[in-house]
Amino acid sequence: MIRFDTDYMAGAHPAVLEEIIKNNRVQTPGYGHDAFCEQARKLIREACGTPDAQVFFMVGGTQTNATVLDGLLPRIGGVIAVESGHINVHEAGAIEFCGHKVITLPSHQGKMCPKELRAYLQDFYADDTWPYMTVPSAVYISFPTENGTIYTLQELKDLHSIAREYGIPLYIDGARLGFGLAASRDVTLPLLAANCDAFYIGGTKMGALFGEAVVCVNPSLLPAFESLMKAHGSILAKGRLLGIQFARLFTDNLYMEIGKHGVDLAMKLRNVLESRGFHTFIDSPSNQQFFILPNCVIDRISPFVSFEYWGPRGENESKVRFVTSWETTAEDILALDAFIRADG
Amino acid sequence: MIRFDTDYMAGAHPAVLEEIIKNNRVQTPGYGHDAFCEQARKLIREACGTPDAQVFFMVGGTQTNATVLDGLLPRIGGVIAVESGHINVHEAGAIEFCGHKVITLPSHQGKMCPKELRAYLQDFYADDTWPYMTVPSAVYISFPTENGTIYTLQELKDLHSIAREYGIPLYIDGARLGFGLAASRDVTLPLLAANCDAFYIGGTKMGALFGEAVVCVNPSLLPAFESLMKAHGSILAKGRLLGIQFARLFTDNLYMEIGKHGVDLAMKLRNVLESRGFHTFIDSPSNQQFFILPNCVIDRISPFVSFEYWGPRGENESKVRFVTSWETTAEDILALDAFIRADG
Amino acid sequence: MIRFDTDYMAGAHPAVLEEIIKNNRVQTPGYGHDAFCEQARKLIREACGTPDAQVFFMVGGTQTNATVLDGLLPRIGGVIAVESGHINVHEAGAIEFCGHKVITLPSHQGKMCPKELRAYLQDFYADDTWPYMTVPSAVYISFPTENGTIYTLQELKDLHSIAREYGIPLYIDGARLGFGLAASRDVTLPLLAANCDAFYIGGTKMGALFGEAVVCVNPSLLPAFESLMKAHGSILAKGRLLGIQFARLFTDNLYMEIGKHGVDLAMKLRNVLESRGFHTFIDSPSNQQFFILPNCVIDRISPFVSFEYWGPRGENESKVRFVTSWETTAEDILALDAFIRADG
Amino acid sequence: MIRFDTDYMAGAHPAVLEEIIKNNRVQTPGYGHDAFCEQARKLIREACGTPDAQVFFMVGGTQTNATVLDGLLPRIGGVIAVESGHINVHEAGAIEFCGHKVITLPSHQGKMCPKELRAYLQDFYADDTWPYMTVPSAVYISFPTENGTIYTLQELKDLHSIAREYGIPLYIDGARLGFGLAASRDVTLPLLAANCDAFYIGGTKMGALFGEAVVCVNPSLLPAFESLMKAHGSILAKGRLLGIQFARLFTDNLYMEIGKHGVDLAMKLRNVLESRGFHTFIDSPSNQQFFILPNCVIDRISPFVSFEYWGPRGENESKVRFVTSWETTAEDILALDAFIRADG
Repeated sequence: MIRFDTDYMAGAHPAVLEEIIKNNRVQTPGYGHDAFCEQARKLIREACGTPDAQVFFMVGGTQTNATVLDGLLPRIGGVIAVESGHINVHEAGAIEFCGHKVITLPSHQGKMCPKELRAYLQDFYADDTWPYMTVPSAVYISFPTENGTIYTLQELKDLHSIAREYGIPLYIDGARLGFGLAASRDVTLPLLAANCDAFYIGGTKMGALFGEAVVCVNPSLLPAFESLMKAHGSILAKGRLLGIQFARLFTDNLYMEIGKHGVDLAMKLRNVLESRGFHTFIDSPSNQQFFILPNCVIDRISPFVSFEYWGPRGENESKVRFVTSWETTAEDILALDAFIRADG
Repeated sequence: MIRFDTDYMAGAHPAVLEEIIKNNRVQTPGYGHDAFCEQARKLIREACGTPDAQVFFMVGGTQTNATVLDGLLPRIGGVIAVESGHINVHEAGAIEFCGHKVITLPSHQGKMCPKELRAYLQDFYADDTWPYMTVPSAVYISFPTENGTIYTLQELKDLHSIAREYGIPLYIDGARLGFGLAASRDVTLPLLAANCDAFYIGGTKMGALFGEAVVCVNPSLLPAFESLMKAHGSILAKGRLLGIQFARLFTDNLYMEIGKHGVDLAMKLRNVLESRGFHTFIDSPSNQQFFILPNCVIDRISPFVSFEYWGPRGENESKVRFVTSWETTAEDILALDAFIRADG
Repeated sequence: MIRFDTDYMAGAHPAVLEEIIKNNRVQTPGYGHDAFCEQARKLIREACGTPDAQVFFMVGGTQTNATVLDGLLPRIGGVIAVESGHINVHEAGAIEFCGHKVITLPSHQGKMCPKELRAYLQDFYADDTWPYMTVPSAVYISFPTENGTIYTLQELKDLHSIAREYGIPLYIDGARLGFGLAASRDVTLPLLAANCDAFYIGGTKMGALFGEAVVCVNPSLLPAFESLMKAHGSILAKGRLLGIQFARLFTDNLYMEIGKHGVDLAMKLRNVLESRGFHTFIDSPSNQQFFILPNCVIDRISPFVSFEYWGPRGENESKVRFVTSWETTAEDILALDAFIRADG
Repeated sequence: MIRFDTDYMAGAHPAVLEEIIKNNRVQTPGYGHDAFCEQARKLIREACGTPDAQVFFMVGGTQTNATVLDGLLPRIGGVIAVESGHINVHEAGAIEFCGHKVITLPSHQGKMCPKELRAYLQDFYADDTWPYMTVPSAVYISFPTENGTIYTLQELKDLHSIAREYGIPLYIDGARLGFGLAASRDVTLPLLAANCDAFYIGGTKMGALFGEAVVCVNPSLLPAFESLMKAHGSILAKGRLLGIQFARLFTDNLYMEIGKHGVDLAMKLRNVLESRGFHTFIDSPSNQQFFILPNCVIDRISPFVSFEYWGPRGENESKVRFVTSWETTAEDILALDAFIRADG
């Protein structure tokens, strides 16, 4: 079985696992107060070009989004996201669990439109009763989005500029950040960091066993954040495990290489499917590829290839998602092609 | 100044106030454990035809919605409402503050479409990942809606039937219930009670100084509710004040008469405006009337008549809302007509 | 039946009720944005000698404590109170419902000892793991306390000074503030305001139908508080009712006179009981009096006099509480004396 | 440096790490829906003798306590714990963050006294105002306690019986469960499971990289728990990692052997210190040992041996804690002895 279901089906990238093994017997203090975490923080600050940023490590994405947004938002402030945003759909109401409304704007293949953001904020404050409505107190976007699309540098600048105008932070969910950066023509890690207030560098989907690194570019935005993390159950006792992994990911450019590897193979996969006459329903430049396939093809290749079903499209076709990762190989793509061709 | 801004601009209906005055020196236990509250509960149960219902009194609408929904919903369950629903717009995120997501469906002039409700629930459970999404655990509608519209009996039956099918309660926000019942051709208080699981009978907008009466038709749905009310800060120390007011409102048919009075005058107001050539932008049969007026008319009558501005409509016209109440008189409508006519 | 159960058994002081009646038909905007509230805020600021204070009106005490503390505290900050503090015992966990731990110190007849407060704070920060414990972020005391006792001016100064040293606000629950001020030898309303960061002036127990007035001495401590109040369900639609009542209470010294009346009669009551040979188990100078009575006396007078049972004291005696209010008369005390004497 | 600071200073027990390495490339579905987790659940059910129990895996202890208690408790129910309980002290208010009060009873060297539990519950319901107080809705104890002490089987039976009588669950925090079982004379894993409603088997402190296994003996107590876990951010994307580790820990008796190893060495450590004339200040039979040491001894051995400082004891002595783990060796104890002896 060749698997394209998602990018977190196996364990860790071998280089990351090797570091965990190598340091297994090293004894350190807990809760992230160890030399591995310190080293990882230093490497991340350097890679982002943000010497003053605060860096925090957490275990998973939902936990990270909920904890960071709970820290960024005032007690009852809401966060603006597009309808397809992960926090609005697939986190079981974790944001609302913490008391915060997710205010939704339309999703444009996963992206938020700067003009719509500005219009929303203008209309909100034009209504005299706004103190009795949920005050929009942060902006959440994903890079890449849940649809694999990515913002241009200009779009990031526009969103950030609008957020600043209204005095609210722009927070970026980077669960697949490495794949997004590899797919972008103009956004680099330092440029991303320069155009938002806080973001997280996803590890779980990028070759770590688990782990996400929050970069709070403006260090005053998350005061007393360690206590908040503890109350959220978001501090790992053996925090060193997060430090070890991120230190490795940010050594020898590994994080970016994993991103590039995934995107390269996603493009190969796309070429293979397009050359066999199939079409995408979302134009994604990153490691998620969204295709319309005839149901007969799906039925035929399913015993050999796995991918995610996204719903019907008419009577005879379906929408499916293929995801590549650090594990995907050129041979996997060739094999996929072979299974597809067998149709002819 | 003749005021049509809203229905809670003055104090209490004289008959209600009189009861408060009359009983001012009567000493009773606190927290709603008094004979006035007991009498009011009895009268409400009788009026609703629900001898087993639990009846709770609270002070205001947002408080009532938040406390009741927090009681009806499981810890992280969400509540389905239309986009224009009061809990989704004008309660400052009070539902999310309690940990619950408001899941939105389209608003059809304030109403929820039973077919869309069914489709949403079907699609939700058709997605295998539903346990990681917010589980829809109650349905919220308003009667009348925030747009003055009202559900037919068949629509209520359909919504209730779908909710039951999915094992979740239907809760009705009756902030202006009396006006809705007066405007309805087929929904009576007992029929409303028979076609939902819980609702509240609004007092604040219906002639009380303040107060809302929650009717929990299925008494098992809100166990230990007094403790939850206390934790929400929703129990009035001198609960007798709520008992006194609701006992009076449900004596001699006063509640229904206030509703009828408001709706009759709203229809008169509508006739006046339509006869002068103006059009509604929402077709409301209850005490809120929604008109498009030329800006020049608005400017001219505003020194004498107050109403609520709902936004522009093109360059020369605006949307406005007129609301009648127990205070509105036939003379007020005639005076409005005079101010309008002066235009000719 | 002569009632000494508590101070909120009847409606409103006649002078307060008269104002409500007089202004019943005046139409105003809602939510506290009316001239009555503006006037009440002005009178309260003057009475407190705090021209810059923010003044907010809410309906009840539990609601007020929960909303204000949720505003004063950071997201997960805790509040220090004595074990017998109202927020720790009789508010059904309303503070924890909002996410905040109540950290308890010993109760000295209801009072917090400044030395114990300092010691707690010193010990807390002496423990290196404090960021993983609940950070004490506000101090809550009651004036008078739940045991009727009152802090001296020096004690208030000491508590305030310690709180300031640690950068946390001192908040005073003034549910019975007027009785506390009347009982104090050195604390006046301006001195109380000068020695805390926020407090509330109780109305419900001081002759209002309902209502509490929050005075936020340092106006920067509760930003965007109206939105938080709305989310807590703490804003009264017809806010004018709170303005009308507090404007009257703070006209012609009525609030202080009600306080003095209650305390004078409490002292008379105390004299009567002590002259009959009974003893207090708490030495309270305010309107709550705590006596030990033989069970046979209790049984004999209970058909004629009501008061609160506070538990057994040995086999033949019980602890009871007598409370006076604006309603209590000199005749009530004489009648109590007569019932007691009948024992002899 | 020989380290006795705590039991989570290094990575994983070699046998556990080996399984992670071996299965690194196996691809599985996420969120705990994989064969490793299924196998671990089966092994745990067998070891506990609870074929119907639900087993859930989470990452850390604070997360586990907060998520499970939020699931066990009604919306605003409180949980009874002793003052020294981990949830009351060292979880940054994580329980209150979820809306629940921690109600405290005295700590007897970390243990709850069954008689005091019963007395508390009796007194609570003897007070008529209990619906306005926090309703005790679960009992939390630790096995072993934060002071290393352990409950006898009879004590567990008594606590469970009282909890059942009041219809509330008994939940056991088993962060160091293996050490507690190894230290107990009469409590085995099946007997522990038979005498509570839910508990967790700690992994983080027992040789796993991380991870805790919740055993819900009564499977009806945590309905829809996966959604609650997701909302708490408590579901690990690569849940397989938890399954792999617990499957190994519950194969070939490894979990119990790690427990026995730690306790054996703790007893050796105790003998060494006692034979040198030092005394314990808590009598702990498990892997935490609490000694009073002269400050001069502490100063002298600190460059070579690390342990935890628990505060001063008079002028010349201090309280310290030594902890053993799967890593501790007999050589470590001999070396400690050598450093101590060098004093003579």
